[in-house]
Amino acid sequence: MYRYVHGGDIYSDPSLKCNKDMLDYSANINPLGIPAGVRRALREAIAGCVNYPDPFCRELRDRLSRYFSLPAEMFYCGNGAADVLFRLMTALQPKRTLVLAPTFADYEKAALTAGSKIDYFTLQEKDEFVVTSEILKAITKRTEMVVLCNPNNPTGKLMDKALLLEILQHCKELHIPLLVDECFLDFVQDRENYTLIDQLAGYPNLIILKAFTKIFAIPGVRLGFCLTSDAALIDKLYASGQDWNVSALAQAAGIAAMEETDYLVETRELIAVEKAYLITQLRLIKLQVFEGAANYLLIKTTHNYPWPEKLKKYHVLIRDCSNYHGLSEGYYRIAVKTRRDNRKLIKIMKELVKHDMFNYIN
Amino acid sequence: MYRYVHGGDIYSDPSLKCNKDMLDYSANINPLGIPAGVRRALREAIAGCVNYPDPFCRELRDRLSRYFSLPAEMFYCGNGAADVLFRLMTALQPKRTLVLAPTFADYEKAALTAGSKIDYFTLQEKDEFVVTSEILKAITKRTEMVVLCNPNNPTGKLMDKALLLEILQHCKELHIPLLVDECFLDFVQDRENYTLIDQLAGYPNLIILKAFTKIFAIPGVRLGFCLTSDAALIDKLYASGQDWNVSALAQAAGIAAMEETDYLVETRELIAVEKAYLITQLRLIKLQVFEGAANYLLIKTTHNYPWPEKLKKYHVLIRDCSNYHGLSEGYYRIAVKTRRDNRKLIKIMKELVKHDMFNYIN
Repeated sequence: MYRYVHGGDIYSDPSLKCNKDMLDYSANINPLGIPAGVRRALREAIAGCVNYPDPFCRELRDRLSRYFSLPAEMFYCGNGAADVLFRLMTALQPKRTLVLAPTFADYEKAALTAGSKIDYFTLQEKDEFVVTSEILKAITKRTEMVVLCNPNNPTGKLMDKALLLEILQHCKELHIPLLVDECFLDFVQDRENYTLIDQLAGYPNLIILKAFTKIFAIPGVRLGFCLTSDAALIDKLYASGQDWNVSALAQAAGIAAMEETDYLVETRELIAVEKAYLITQLRLIKLQVFEGAANYLLIKTTHNYPWPEKLKKYHVLIRDCSNYHGLSEGYYRIAVKTRRDNRKLIKIMKELVKHDMFNYIN
Repeated sequence: MYRYVHGGDIYSDPSLKCNKDMLDYSANINPLGIPAGVRRALREAIAGCVNYPDPFCRELRDRLSRYFSLPAEMFYCGNGAADVLFRLMTALQPKRTLVLAPTFADYEKAALTAGSKIDYFTLQEKDEFVVTSEILKAITKRTEMVVLCNPNNPTGKLMDKALLLEILQHCKELHIPLLVDECFLDFVQDRENYTLIDQLAGYPNLIILKAFTKIFAIPGVRLGFCLTSDAALIDKLYASGQDWNVSALAQAAGIAAMEETDYLVETRELIAVEKAYLITQLRLIKLQVFEGAANYLLIKTTHNYPWPEKLKKYHVLIRDCSNYHGLSEGYYRIAVKTRRDNRKLIKIMKELVKHDMFNYIN
């Protein structure tokens, strides 16, 4: 039976959905919620749904082009970043794909669906799960695809740009496509020091994956895209699935989102402040916290206290990370939300530590 | 360069989009427009887009289950029927696929994307493009997938149920999955005499494809599904792509659409009456009309009058069918719309016949 392995599952347990007190710390969504302009655009786009959506997302790609100061031809839009990821694997058909461990599970799932074998570059806890130059040795002539995630999920760790450039050059020499998922880089304040967007023109083997889903809090709408200067690959992406993957609603939402510059500034400030608050508070209750750059935190417990199960009784969901390759029992991921929500979470956790946890320590 | 081959392209020519006078006869959408209840559900679902959609579409499949009186486990929902089609091919990986010619182009595109070879069963104009029992000979031990479309697109021709059952049994004996696209059967008044839905339990090799897109006039929302009693295939469909392919908006629209029974009755009555009107009128201007059961008509001209180009000047789009396998220049597909629109179309066509066409007849 097929199993869903991600966060954000508010559906399996009917007591959670539509529960006003439910706090979903398992999905990494912008806590500011859907921008008003995007909500308005969605409302206004409903009447137009009587027509097929533009299969080439012309207006949306035009806005993206202006926003990133890159040609519209470099953008391919999909039904969420996950759709773009699966299309990329279908289009590229790699036979061996190198992924990080731990990382987002769908790189592997998409590669396997396209018939690829998987090689793991296992990140070390002693290195705080940061990617080291050792990865260069793992990228060999037999590698046909490399997927990186910057900042990585679930660790939140950024990759050093000098190392990224070395990897990119190494991949270019070996004719290996390098996919860098920068979906969560939008939450990072000094993201221009880490993005590879400035390298697209010089490296046709580079593909950058991005999403509207997380940063604009519209995972239910589904909108993601990738950037590459490889025109033949963009063409293959169109050919590798249905023509109408991006709904008219998603296209309208994306076009409106491109205007929300203040919202983005506010988001990054909020995440920085709230993450600092959560780190301090979580450490006060003796949890090990891996400091990451994204809008989530990887934490580790040393004893067998069943945090997800206990928190669920308070309608709080967190992400159990024991099913990630390279992690095991005791690792959890917690999203960064507003101060109001974060206070609630910490209050509940402190109560559990005080009144319940001692039952589990032997 | 990748080419879009379908109808409904109101985007390539900027003079068409947002043109109030534009009449799109190239896409086969319910002319009654989006039901009020579905529009309301879409508006109300916007706030919930802050969460990931249910990857298993539980509430929607529950409604479908009640509507069709079949277990919810038999339904798989996707981002439009086209998404389900591509997933099916990815999951089944046929090496040889038999499709009709002419028929909807995406069966072939999806099969090719999954690495299949294509065999055509070419429909004969002398048979009015109706599928005959000759097709049984074309389904051999080497066939690994058969795709039928009932009623077929662009001909509108229904398949005889006795022949369908023979094909189904023949496919079962040869262990061949049979996909029957019944997307346009919802527009047919005596559809219960043609559907294979009653055969699902006895034939696990049967897959029926259906869409909300056409019948509820929401192609911009994207929602389709398939039915099969092959539980292992349903499981594979979930594994053959991203988890969140059906947006929260599409799920809400689908749930609301299941209540629109009056709308469906009204739709079928309108299509029957308006199709009869169009057939009479088109024949009056000496066009050959193939009478079909769906909400569109295949027509044929004997001289080289460039109908699509001429009609476009009046902001009318029709579907040039010369790019269908098995058809050639001079075949066009025209949707059935409301009397008001149909009158406009016929008026324009009559004027062209009277004042312009003689320039093209030698």
